[in-house]
Amino acid sequence: MRSLLLIAHGSRRDASNDEVRGLATAVAAQMDGRYDRVGCAFLELAEPDIATAIDREVGVGATEIVCFPYFLAAGHHVIRDVPGIIEAARERHPGVTIRLERYLGAQHRLAQLIAELVP
Amino acid sequence: MRSLLLIAHGSRRDASNDEVRGLATAVAAQMDGRYDRVGCAFLELAEPDIATAIDREVGVGATEIVCFPYFLAAGHHVIRDVPGIIEAARERHPGVTIRLERYLGAQHRLAQLIAELVP
Repeated sequence: MRSLLLIAHGSRRDASNDEVRGLATAVAAQMDGRYDRVGCAFLELAEPDIATAIDREVGVGATEIVCFPYFLAAGHHVIRDVPGIIEAARERHPGVTIRLERYLGAQHRLAQLIAELVP
Repeated sequence: MRSLLLIAHGSRRDASNDEVRGLATAVAAQMDGRYDRVGCAFLELAEPDIATAIDREVGVGATEIVCFPYFLAAGHHVIRDVPGIIEAARERHPGVTIRLERYLGAQHRLAQLIAELVP
């Protein structure tokens, strides 16, 4: 069973967190069955936190969890905090494959998308 | 003459600002001549600021400036600060068309991109 988690920073504004939750739903609709579950998790300020979300996916039977950092810049959160949480999750769940993708802002295709989005 | 400006928050980390500058270069390479110039501007903490960047484009002959907010969430910066700066620029330059696009996080195609990026 495969799960995808969008990893976002989290905000004091509920509306911002709901934007991320809505994005996860929209991503799920594009998946064509490649993932059994698509959800989101937050580094801070919103729930679920990343560790809780990973443990939940393992608890419902995930054997592979792909984490996609929904961040634009390679700050401390992307470079240090998120990888540390993922590594701890791998140690808790040695039988589960937990992948950490490159963060959104580092994806080369983002430039192409922006070029296509502007008039 | 048409100019595109990626509008980013700006960071105390030079590397983050350089990521945005690099993205602007990458977007320019995708443009196929639709824009004469592609640059970036920062709300705070980095240069050029948005007003300065717009004035610079006008100064070199831009008749249309498209501003694309490189933000993921609709916080105060996206809802209030950036539109206020754009509106003031329009008042300074009534003969120039200054467009403000929807911010990146609100673009429906972002979900499709993320779905395509994950394995």
